[in-house]
Amino acid sequence: MLRPEEVTRPTLLLNRQQAINNIERMHRKAAQSSVAFRPHFKTHQSATIGSWFRKMGVTAITVSSVEMAVYFAQHGWQDITIAFPVNVRQLDAINALADSLTLHLLLDNANTAVQLNQALTHSVNVWLEVDAGYHRTGVPWDNTQTILTVARTVQQAQHLQWRGILTHAGNTYAARGQAAILAAHAETMSRLHTVQTRLVENGMETAVSIGDTPACSVLESFTGVDEIRPGNFVFYDLMQAQIGACTLPEIAVAAACPVVGVYPQRNQIALYGGAVHLSKESLVEADGSIRYGRIARLTQDGWEILSPHHYVAGLSQEHGLVQTNEDLLNTVTPGDLLLVLPVHSCLTANLLKKYVTLEGEQIHMAAIH
Amino acid sequence: MLRPEEVTRPTLLLNRQQAINNIERMHRKAAQSSVAFRPHFKTHQSATIGSWFRKMGVTAITVSSVEMAVYFAQHGWQDITIAFPVNVRQLDAINALADSLTLHLLLDNANTAVQLNQALTHSVNVWLEVDAGYHRTGVPWDNTQTILTVARTVQQAQHLQWRGILTHAGNTYAARGQAAILAAHAETMSRLHTVQTRLVENGMETAVSIGDTPACSVLESFTGVDEIRPGNFVFYDLMQAQIGACTLPEIAVAAACPVVGVYPQRNQIALYGGAVHLSKESLVEADGSIRYGRIARLTQDGWEILSPHHYVAGLSQEHGLVQTNEDLLNTVTPGDLLLVLPVHSCLTANLLKKYVTLEGEQIHMAAIH
Repeated sequence: MLRPEEVTRPTLLLNRQQAINNIERMHRKAAQSSVAFRPHFKTHQSATIGSWFRKMGVTAITVSSVEMAVYFAQHGWQDITIAFPVNVRQLDAINALADSLTLHLLLDNANTAVQLNQALTHSVNVWLEVDAGYHRTGVPWDNTQTILTVARTVQQAQHLQWRGILTHAGNTYAARGQAAILAAHAETMSRLHTVQTRLVENGMETAVSIGDTPACSVLESFTGVDEIRPGNFVFYDLMQAQIGACTLPEIAVAAACPVVGVYPQRNQIALYGGAVHLSKESLVEADGSIRYGRIARLTQDGWEILSPHHYVAGLSQEHGLVQTNEDLLNTVTPGDLLLVLPVHSCLTANLLKKYVTLEGEQIHMAAIH
Repeated sequence: MLRPEEVTRPTLLLNRQQAINNIERMHRKAAQSSVAFRPHFKTHQSATIGSWFRKMGVTAITVSSVEMAVYFAQHGWQDITIAFPVNVRQLDAINALADSLTLHLLLDNANTAVQLNQALTHSVNVWLEVDAGYHRTGVPWDNTQTILTVARTVQQAQHLQWRGILTHAGNTYAARGQAAILAAHAETMSRLHTVQTRLVENGMETAVSIGDTPACSVLESFTGVDEIRPGNFVFYDLMQAQIGACTLPEIAVAAACPVVGVYPQRNQIALYGGAVHLSKESLVEADGSIRYGRIARLTQDGWEILSPHHYVAGLSQEHGLVQTNEDLLNTVTPGDLLLVLPVHSCLTANLLKKYVTLEGEQIHMAAIH
C-alpha cells in the first residue's frame, strides 16, 4: 500500500485501477466499432503503463516526438505513429527508426515529403495531416489543390507509403458538454469525409485517423473512421471534466503536495508544489477566476475530491497557493499532504517524471530532455 | 561557435557574455552598497553557471529546494539558503545537509521551529519569513505578536541560530515601470523596518534579506538591507522586460525551435517547441491577447529580436504556434530555426534542462525530479 509518510516531495499519485478502467473502456469501444486503436502515449510516457495496453492486445501506438518513439521502441513497440509534423532536422533519427520498426509519419506539405523521401533508405507510412478547423497544423480541409498535390507527391515517392488523412480535432477542447463535443466532432467528420471523397475520386485509397480525447470519450461508437488515437483519457484531468469528456472520479492522477504554510487571515494554504511540478496550465471559471488545480485528500483506499471552493489559485516556481475556507484550514497543519487534481495531466506527468500507485508501486517514465 | 545545423530539437541558447554582464552588474551594485550578495540559483540550476559567480568572489547562494541544495553542495558550495518554507517531511535530508555545510532556512510559524529543532543534530541559521504584502508565505508584517513568538521560539531552540527577517517581495512583479517598482519596494522596506524595529526593541538583533529581481535591478544602491538574493536577473526574460526590470537586449536566453509548418492563410508558423519546452507561462498584452514568447532570429554573433508583431500565440504539448505577418512568412520554410524569447526564463530552463552557448558550448543543469 501507499505509505503517505514516504511522500516527502510533490509526487504524482496514480489510481492504477481507474487508469486500467479508462483504457479498457476505450479499447472495448474501439473493438466494438472495428476501428484500429492506436493510443497516444505522450500522456503517460511510461513503458510500464504501456504494458497495461499491451496486455489488452494493443500493438500499435502514437507518440509526439522522435525521442518518445525511440523510448517505446526500446520497450518492444514495433508499430509507432509520430503524431507531430515531420521535423526535417531529425531525418537521420527518423531513418534509423524506420529501419527497426513500422513507422508512421505525418506531414502537410510537398517539400517535406520530398526531403523525407530523399533522406530515407527505409520505407515509412505517411499520413496527410488535415486541418479540419483547429488551425494548428495541417492542410486546410477545403484546400483541395494542395491536398491532392501533397498526396500525389507521397504516392510517387519511393520510400513513402500513402495511408490516408489524419487530424487532431483540438476544437473539441473548446466545447462544453457532450452535445457540443458531438457537434464539433460531426463538423470535423463531415470535413474529413469531403477530403477523403476527393482523394478517392482521384484514385487514392484513403484511411481516416482521428485522435481527440473529448470526442473519443463521448462517442458510443466510431463510424467513418479507421483509427482512433486518443491519449489523455488514460488519466483524464480537470480540463477534460470541464469539457464534459469525463467525470471527476474518472481522473486517475493527483499530485500529492506537502503543506508548508497555513494562513487563516486570507483563507489560504501554501503547498510544496509549484509551476515546476503542476505546470502553469489553468482553467478559467465562470466567475473569471483562474485555477491551477482542485484539492483532494487521501482516504483509506484512494482520494476524496473536495468541493470546488478549494482550489489552487496561484503558482510560483515551487509554491502552490490554495484558496480554501475554514472547514479545511481548521484541519490542516504544515506537514500534512494535500492532493491536487491537475488541470492538464499530460503536462503534470511530464514534470513529475514518475508515478506512485495507490498500492505503493513506483512507476518510471521516459527521461526525455 | 554555435552550429545551427546541429540544433535538431528545442534547445535553450545562452548568450554567455550577456549573462556574465548581468551577474557582474548585480555583483558590483551589491559590493558598492556593502550588502551581502547571495544569488538565487533556481533560475539557472547549473554548476557551470554557478562557477561564473564563484569567479567573481560569490561564496553564498540561495536555492529553492532541498534537492537543489544537495546538487550545489556536491559542486562545492558551502553556504546555502533554502528560500522555501521548511518542509517538515524532509527533516532528515535537511539534517544531513546541515552536517556538511552552513545552511540557512526560513520558516513562518513556531510549530515548524519546534519540529525542526527536535529533528536536528546540527546547527542551522534561521530566518523568519515576513509577508510584506505579496501574500504567498510568511507572517504578515503587522502581526507583531506572532512575529515575536516565532522569533523567541527560534532564539530559544538549541540548534537554531536566529538571523533575521527575509521576504520575497513578489508584489514588484505587478509593477509596470521603474517608478512603480521603486514605490512597491519602498513600501516593502518600510514594512520590513517596522518588523526589524519591533524585534530589536525586544532584544533580538535582526538582519534583513530581500530578493526580488525587479527591485534589485532598478535600485542604484541598496540601503536598509543586509543581503540581496535575486535570481532571475542572470537571464532575465519577457516578464522582467514588461515589468521594466530589464531591456530586451539584456535577456540572455532564447529557445531555438525548428519550424515545422508555415500557414500563410492565417499568418501563422508552427514550431517544434511547446508547453513541455517553453512552459505555459504567459503575458497578457494591452489588447488582451495572450503571448507565450517573442520571436528572434539567429545572426552571425547572436540573435536579432523581431518586432512585437511576431509572437507565440498558442502552445500545446509539443507545438508552438507563432502569430506573424508576411515579412517573416515569406522568408521562412520548414526546417528553419526561429528563436523564442521566454516569458519566464526560470521555467523554460527547468524544462529544457541544458544550455548551448553562442560559442557552441553545452552546459548541463541539475537533474532534479
